[in-house]
Amino acid sequence: MFGAIEAGGTKFVCGIGTGPGDLEWAQMATTSPDDTLAEVVEFFRRSARPIEALGIASFGPVDLDPSSPTWGHIAATPKLAWRNFDLAGAMGRALGVPVGFDTDVNGAALGEARWGAGRGLSDFLYLTVGTGIGGGALAGGRPLHGFTHPEMGHIQIPRDPQDPYPGGCPYHRDCLEGLASGPAIQERWGLPATHLPPEHPAWPLEARYLALGVANWMYTLSPRRVILGGGVMQQQHLFELIEVELTRILNGYIAVPPAFLSPPLLGTRAGVLGALVLAEQARLRSPEVA
Amino acid sequence: MFGAIEAGGTKFVCGIGTGPGDLEWAQMATTSPDDTLAEVVEFFRRSARPIEALGIASFGPVDLDPSSPTWGHIAATPKLAWRNFDLAGAMGRALGVPVGFDTDVNGAALGEARWGAGRGLSDFLYLTVGTGIGGGALAGGRPLHGFTHPEMGHIQIPRDPQDPYPGGCPYHRDCLEGLASGPAIQERWGLPATHLPPEHPAWPLEARYLALGVANWMYTLSPRRVILGGGVMQQQHLFELIEVELTRILNGYIAVPPAFLSPPLLGTRAGVLGALVLAEQARLRSPEVA
Repeated sequence: MFGAIEAGGTKFVCGIGTGPGDLEWAQMATTSPDDTLAEVVEFFRRSARPIEALGIASFGPVDLDPSSPTWGHIAATPKLAWRNFDLAGAMGRALGVPVGFDTDVNGAALGEARWGAGRGLSDFLYLTVGTGIGGGALAGGRPLHGFTHPEMGHIQIPRDPQDPYPGGCPYHRDCLEGLASGPAIQERWGLPATHLPPEHPAWPLEARYLALGVANWMYTLSPRRVILGGGVMQQQHLFELIEVELTRILNGYIAVPPAFLSPPLLGTRAGVLGALVLAEQARLRSPEVA
Repeated sequence: MFGAIEAGGTKFVCGIGTGPGDLEWAQMATTSPDDTLAEVVEFFRRSARPIEALGIASFGPVDLDPSSPTWGHIAATPKLAWRNFDLAGAMGRALGVPVGFDTDVNGAALGEARWGAGRGLSDFLYLTVGTGIGGGALAGGRPLHGFTHPEMGHIQIPRDPQDPYPGGCPYHRDCLEGLASGPAIQERWGLPATHLPPEHPAWPLEARYLALGVANWMYTLSPRRVILGGGVMQQQHLFELIEVELTRILNGYIAVPPAFLSPPLLGTRAGVLGALVLAEQARLRSPEVA
């Protein structure tokens, strides 16, 4: 039995189980580290099912370098109370189990790989388009890490010359996230995405920007599938619009594989289920097992 | 002792050895498959050093899917005589040894990883900026593969509004390769890159485009280093210009690690040395060894 936390900027989703079939879960608001973690620890202690390891898929930026003294810490987040907080360490000490730790989007990618739209695929990309834009890529079955972790939403793409919106990213203004996140749609059109009907001109523009991102990631990563999740992608008509734009942008240079764009099959549970995979990996790495 | 071929569109570089210290090599023009391969086979047969396996780092596009019936073939290249040619199969049959096969840039990345500017790094990017722009990324020590192989030069970036050159890519016009390859520089300014002095306005523009590419790849891959090779990067003043532009584009969102941009340490031998690594991997995979 494993424990899982999807640590988000607005809520923590906690789960206990071994997979989608037996997952017992709850969610709590993200407030201060002390208050939130007290609730999280209570959730795990209250359960009749003791856990062997814990996985955390966290909002970021985070330190993922196993050789770093601040591995498992949240880094320079705008949420000041969480800045430099040792999330993996605090939870590991509180529950006395090994901890696996990765980004929220890498977690979601691992969940979809095991039980969802990435099953059987060792090389694919999970994207979330919502408050921000983030990507978790598996290469050879493992999440991409390196100097730090990817921050895919911040790539620069050509902006539409007819688009008057300057972009909303505080760092880059008109990077992809600055042009195509949920808040960017709302600022540009004066209405939240959920209030814009499918025939609204917001959607072809949104599809064009997202297709430019997907094309750049295809050229860079060569994924076998791109799973598109997050609040904005609840607009299901977007999938077809993105595929049309993508085909136009690629212009025959590389093909779009069949069933290439897919919604996540685990829905909003991808992150917490991916954290179960992180827990299992931490258990396999822990000295008692090795 | 291993055999290595860097198969390029204009020349084949062939080598025999175990590394940079004992590499015996020769090059031959790329003409027809029959004529070129006759010379290549002659090179290996003439040598007093019999090889245990052969590695090929090839121009592309190529089929790298081990489960595909056309694995090791060159695919839809504009060089018609080589289209659908079974390069790995033809060489394996001629020399009677196991064959490892990858793209030219993945080969160069493997060479730099073993003996060059990527030593000790499991996650880095090798870029070549010359006739085209190509990238080979190692993630967890292995080249990125997926649906096919990356074609990094074809990403779309914002073009400079002052740049009158429409771009030279036959598929995308103003993708990165279309704007910043050697032929694009020559077409834009009417002179080959080697004739443009360091103070020419060509260079800040070139640096801006390349920095946009590097930034996008940082956000996507999180490499620990970017090795910049190829003919255009012989202009060593470009390194500093790119770093300045890169820092400006990232705008503090992520840091540029120390010694992040580097020339290749193996120079023009990176590809053929990387093919030696491919040969060694093929030998380890071959049934007699396993």
